[in-house]
Parts: sequence; structure tokens; C-alpha cells
Amino acid sequence: MELTRTPLLTDLYQLTMLQTYYEQDMTETAVFEFFVRKAPVSRPFYLAAGLEQVLDWLEQLRFGEEERQWISESGLFSDAFADRLAGFRFSGDVDAMPEGTVFFPDEPIIRVTAPLPEAQLVESRLMNILHFQTLIATKAARCMLAAQGRTLVDFGLRRAHGAEAGLHAARACYVAGFSATATCLANALYGIPVTGTMAHSFILAHDDETEAFRRFARSHPDNVVLLIDTYDTERAAEKVVALAPELAAENIPIKAVRLDSGDLAEHARRVRAILDRGGLTETRILASGGLDETSIAEILDSGAPVDGFGVGSKVDTSADIPFLDSAYKLHAYAGRPRFKRSEGKQDVPGAKQVVRHMQDAGEMAYDVLTLEDEAARGEPLLQPMMRGGRRLAQPETLEAVRKRAAASLAALPEEVKRLPDPATYPVRISDRLNALMKATT
Amino acid sequence: MELTRTPLLTDLYQLTMLQTYYEQDMTETAVFEFFVRKAPVSRPFYLAAGLEQVLDWLEQLRFGEEERQWISESGLFSDAFADRLAGFRFSGDVDAMPEGTVFFPDEPIIRVTAPLPEAQLVESRLMNILHFQTLIATKAARCMLAAQGRTLVDFGLRRAHGAEAGLHAARACYVAGFSATATCLANALYGIPVTGTMAHSFILAHDDETEAFRRFARSHPDNVVLLIDTYDTERAAEKVVALAPELAAENIPIKAVRLDSGDLAEHARRVRAILDRGGLTETRILASGGLDETSIAEILDSGAPVDGFGVGSKVDTSADIPFLDSAYKLHAYAGRPRFKRSEGKQDVPGAKQVVRHMQDAGEMAYDVLTLEDEAARGEPLLQPMMRGGRRLAQPETLEAVRKRAAASLAALPEEVKRLPDPATYPVRISDRLNALMKATT
Repeated sequence: MELTRTPLLTDLYQLTMLQTYYEQDMTETAVFEFFVRKAPVSRPFYLAAGLEQVLDWLEQLRFGEEERQWISESGLFSDAFADRLAGFRFSGDVDAMPEGTVFFPDEPIIRVTAPLPEAQLVESRLMNILHFQTLIATKAARCMLAAQGRTLVDFGLRRAHGAEAGLHAARACYVAGFSATATCLANALYGIPVTGTMAHSFILAHDDETEAFRRFARSHPDNVVLLIDTYDTERAAEKVVALAPELAAENIPIKAVRLDSGDLAEHARRVRAILDRGGLTETRILASGGLDETSIAEILDSGAPVDGFGVGSKVDTSADIPFLDSAYKLHAYAGRPRFKRSEGKQDVPGAKQVVRHMQDAGEMAYDVLTLEDEAARGEPLLQPMMRGGRRLAQPETLEAVRKRAAASLAALPEEVKRLPDPATYPVRISDRLNALMKATT
Repeated sequence: MELTRTPLLTDLYQLTMLQTYYEQDMTETAVFEFFVRKAPVSRPFYLAAGLEQVLDWLEQLRFGEEERQWISESGLFSDAFADRLAGFRFSGDVDAMPEGTVFFPDEPIIRVTAPLPEAQLVESRLMNILHFQTLIATKAARCMLAAQGRTLVDFGLRRAHGAEAGLHAARACYVAGFSATATCLANALYGIPVTGTMAHSFILAHDDETEAFRRFARSHPDNVVLLIDTYDTERAAEKVVALAPELAAENIPIKAVRLDSGDLAEHARRVRAILDRGGLTETRILASGGLDETSIAEILDSGAPVDGFGVGSKVDTSADIPFLDSAYKLHAYAGRPRFKRSEGKQDVPGAKQVVRHMQDAGEMAYDVLTLEDEAARGEPLLQPMMRGGRRLAQPETLEAVRKRAAASLAALPEEVKRLPDPATYPVRISDRLNALMKATT
């Protein structure tokens, strides 16, 4: 069983419900939608990511021999159920916002239309994939806004929540506009640029800091980024200046230095002065260590000469809001709209579309939540992605997704994307949807 | 390349450092230790988890053909380096606290003693595994303390951060004392009891709530747990009472009802009264929906008759503190203690041991951080786990780990484990270690 593919990576209730659906021939068409409710802290917009992994997973979904054996031996299911799963395939339709689309609370970003058992079964893993990448792409997009054009790199693997989180966080950050990741596997699998040079342990393993710098430079002459905060940041910057002529004679440029502790803005100013005095005006200053959009904005607002940032734990775990109030809900079955009335969680019923309206200047004006079959002006954001369980197009390149994300973020009104006290973007509800909501409450 | 096994799931700097270490023959013995610094919010103790996956990964670590091809084609490394990796094995020693051991800030829980390149390379994935399971086991242990003997079940897969996070969170929660998980794969791979019955969509797909309950009960007669908050919780409880005689005639007991929204304590009281009046005194009440140790304690403090809790997002993401300030640091190389002096992050140098002292009554008294080769009274917590790259014992059973965790939590002083305003557990530093710290600053 492959961790990322097996249908047993699901909640048991998907399977117990499935057995009953089969027994009762409840296999008519269901419509489920995935959406995110309003966040408790500042998230005036979200950035959609993870669809590619969802489509790939849906297309390959099978119950193999090991899985069916587990079903049989669990004692939780009928023999007929285990047998039926041998032929299980996802045969449904998927409409979704392309990755890299900005969206807002209560807007569905994926709509699954399929026989009820299929649309139900896929819930857990679909959410597990889509929720996480969207969570991280959104956090990373906020860092992009804060960075005002400076380079951002993902350093978060070590404290990401497991193997797939590290890999998918690298992808989501790249979708949002990051320049690179430190995670090699994200390069091997997705072609994301990868960067990295040295940790403090490298300096510590040498008896002399300058000797550590020299050895690294000779070993990686095209990639000299020196970590200078292991002992004393400014003294290390002086050592870099002293070492530079020797390396220059060997045609080895010092591309950058990295600061990883203390008052990063203040160190950056002092180090910039030291490097400039030493003639290293081309050597860039990178900063890392517990950064997120708030601290990046503070550093840059202070005018600190930082050229790029490495971000880790706070972005790869979206630390201020480590999960989104997301849901994958049944909104229609057998031709009738469905919705939950549980307290504090009322949903919008019916199969829906999201239509975006732009200002003449190319700025987003407002969205309208409509019924799926409503003819409405504006740009429909949910697009056909899968029909009868088959993808309608080749996977998009990550570069295309990045471009869409950049354009989508650029089109956001300034007052919605400002970091503190953002305005709420207007999302309207169409007259027909309003009428349905009234009729069903 | 298998996501959870490939050595490319690492930060690039581990590999760039490695090339330089090989070129410079810096292959003497290094000692790295993994520890967690003091948390910014209430975490007076941590619970160690994830060692089993670390040892398994270390033992199997190889650069396969695909990985070496990536190294060669990346343009970042020398040919000699790619060749040398063909023979790479982890040949070092590992000493560690067994899983399920309670520990405290700055105490190492794993010590890796190996040639520098090996001890360095394993950092990223070792941390990625150990940090996450320890994070979640610690959060789950706090829920166990709050639950005062009530059943706890992990429901968190959908919003856990990816595939491995869902699986490993289920494991970490079980280590901490949870009764079960909803994640099927955790049963298939680890034998963790799995539970689950129905979601709101199951009720919504039926035109009639009672009919939904009846169909589920007949389909799963041994596992009737009915979700009753889809429309109106108390009215649904009345429907359960009305349905019970019909099911009883078929020998189908209604094991429990589940509440998932609204004021859970108040609903539990009303539902308990309805069930009791209807003769369903054996039917348990389960609660779920955004719960953590704080809300569980509040519900139980109010005297609400809740028999068990399902917890999800807030536990599987450790939402109040989604990462620990953990580190894997070089503390000795080539026989000399090493340590970083970066501002705000001073480490304790040297290869260390943690020695625990107990009161006569079996309660933990204090720990002492000592040098590894110091003879000290008390119980040494770091035990030999691996020598020369081979495990010294078969993997422990999860039941053994659970027992240790339960005993470890029971031995914690009451004032340290109380949920609000916990006391700080005393961790002392031995005279020899103190002397080393003074000598090196």
C-alpha cells in the first residue's frame, strides 16, 4: 500500500457509509463542494492550490488486493462490500478553480458530481490534500505581499508535519511566488529550484570560522552563501571581507551572506556597511530565523538592506492559523438541493458557480455566488477539469500556475491585500440562489 | 523514489556540506543531539514519540539509482561525490529516550554519534519525523489529562498536514493514550483500533432522518453510533428513542449518539435526559467538533454527561502551538565539545545524558542534565538503541509504548500536569556540565 495513493488513507466512516449506500442502492448523483469558511485571524483572501494532486489521485484510485484483504479481515464489513470494491473507480465529474486562483470565504473551489458512494468516499483524502496546500499557498502569498519583490525561499521541511507536508509546502510556496525551496525532493519531483549551502554545524565542526568559509567556497565555487551568525555576526562579516581577495583571485565570488539570529534588521545594516566598505557591494544579504509576513514587513519597513528571506516553520505550518475551517459538503443529491442546519454552521445549498467581475482597470470588483446552471455575466471561476473520471487536459505546468497566482494577487484590490486591517472583498449571492436559501430554511 | 524513505527528502545544505566534509576528510566522530526549547505557551512537559520511525528510516537509508542520477544531473555536485554516495550507509550509534517518555525543555531525547557526514545528513528527516510525532503526542497527552478517563478518538485526518501527518498523528495520539482513530490506514499499518460510523452527508442524502438511522443500524448492527445534530439535536434524540424498540426487536443496540455542533455540554445534558426517559440508559453520548484540552476540560467541569470525545484539527495540527522550537545540534566533534553562541539561542555543549530522580512514592522529583560519561545516581533516560547502524532490539509494540506513556504521565507531579498555570518541573545541570559550560563561554 502506497501511503499517498491507498484508499485506506481515509476516515472509517466513509467506508461504513459506503456499504449502506450500496446496500440501499443509493447511487444517484450527488454534488459535493469544498469551500473554506471565514478565518478567525487575518485571511482576507485564500489562494487555491493542490488541485493537481487531487486529480491525479482521483484518476488512479483503486482498492488493491491488500486493501480488500484489510476490508475483509477487519470484521467491520459484509463480504459483498469487499467484493464490490474490487471494481471501484472514480467515474465522476470535477469542476474546480485552477490552481493559483485567489478566492474568498464560502466560495466553492472544487465541485464533485458523481454517484453518491464515489463522491462520498473521496472526501477525506481530497480534503487532506487540498486543505493543506491551500493553507500554505495562502500564507506564502501573504509573505510575497510583505516581501515587496525580495526573494523568498522555503526552508521549512524539518518542522513541516511529516514527509508529504514538507514536499507539498515547498510546492504551495512556489505556486504563491517563492523563488526556491531547500527541499531536494521538490526539485526532483516538481522541478522547483533548490537552494542551500551550510548550517551552523558546518562552522562548528571547524576550529576556525574563516577556514570553514574558505573550504566551502572552494568546494562550491558557484554557490558561496556564507552563514555568519554562529559566533559574532559583525566579526564574521569582517572575516568575509578579509577572505574575499583570496577567493577573487580564484574567480570565486561571494554571492551572499546569511543572518539567522538576533535583530536581523540591525545586523543587516551593520553587515551591509562592513561589506560595502570592503568592496563587496555585490554580495547580497539574506535573512532567516522564525520569519513570517509580519516580521518580513517590519524588517523592510525599517529600511534594512535585506535582499532575500528564508522562511520555515511559521510558513510551512501556517503557524498563526494552522488549519482552515474548510468543509466538503453534500449540496445536492438525486436532483434536490441539500444542506445542513447545524448551529453556527449553515451552508449554502445547491450546486454552485463563482462568477468574478472585474473593474475596467483590471482590478477585481466583486464575486457572485450563483447556481451552477445560472447564466451570469462575468468570469466563471469553476472550470471543467474531469468528466467521467478522466482528466480533460494535461496537467498544467507549475510555471503556468505561478503566473496565474501572480496575476490573481496583482488584481486584488489594494485595501484587501494590505497586511494589517484588510478590507473584506465583496461576495454577493445571486437572486436565484437567495431564493433557494429562503425556500430551504 | 519512495516519499518516506528517499534521502532526497532533505534540505540541500545537508548535501552541500557533505561534499565538503568528504573532500576535506572531515569524517571524525560527531555527536548531534535533538532537543526542544521552552515553548511560548503552556507546554510544561513533552511526550517523546516517533523514535520507531526514525530508527527504521536510519537502518534503511540508501541512495538508490534515481537519487544518484538526480545528484549527478543537478549540476550542484562533483562526480566524485555522486559516486561516493552509492556506498552511503548510516553506521552510527543512537541513544534515545524510549517512546512514551515524558521529558522537559533542553533535555536531549536522541543522541546520534557517527562520522560527521552521516550524523549531519540525517538531520532534516530525523527532525521531520521526531518533531511532528512529539508535537502531537504532547498535545494528545494534554487532552488525556483533561478527559479524566473518558474515551478519546482521533478524527483529524482531513485537516492534518498531508498523508503522513494524518497517519503519524493517529499513532502519536494512540501513544498518548487515545482509544482509537478514524484513520483506516493506522489500523492497517499499526493495528490501532479504528472507529467511525456516519457523517452529516449520510443524513442529508436521506429524505428522512429516522430512515437514515434505521438503514445504518441494519447495515452495521454492531456499530450503531448515530450522528444527531444535522437538523435539530433534541428532536433527533427523540427520534432515536422512538426507533430503539424496533431495533431492539432485531437485537440491534444503539451504542451511542454523537453531537457535533452547538453548545455541546448543554446538548449533552438535554440528550441524556431524553435518552434516559426513553430507557436508553446504556446509550453513550459522544461529542466532537473543534475540541481540544481546554474545551474538553470545560465540558467536563460543567458536569456534562459526555462519555467520549472525538478530536480533530486542533489536536492533529497542535493548533495553539503548531511547531516546537526543536533543534538537532552538533555538540561534539573530533573529541571536543561544540556549541553555538548565536544571540538568544545558546546551547548546552557536550554529549549528554538525562538522569531522572523519583520520590519514594513513585512521583518524579527532578531531572539532572549530565555529561554522557558521568556516573550519576538516578535513572538514565537515554538508552542505547542502535550500534554501528544496527538496531539493538526488535521494535517495541505500541501497547508497550502506551503503557510507558501512561506510567510516565501518572508519575508527573500534579502541579506540573495541571492544565492552567502549570508549575515548572526542576531540571538541574550537573557540576561537570556546569563547569564545561563556564569553560566554553
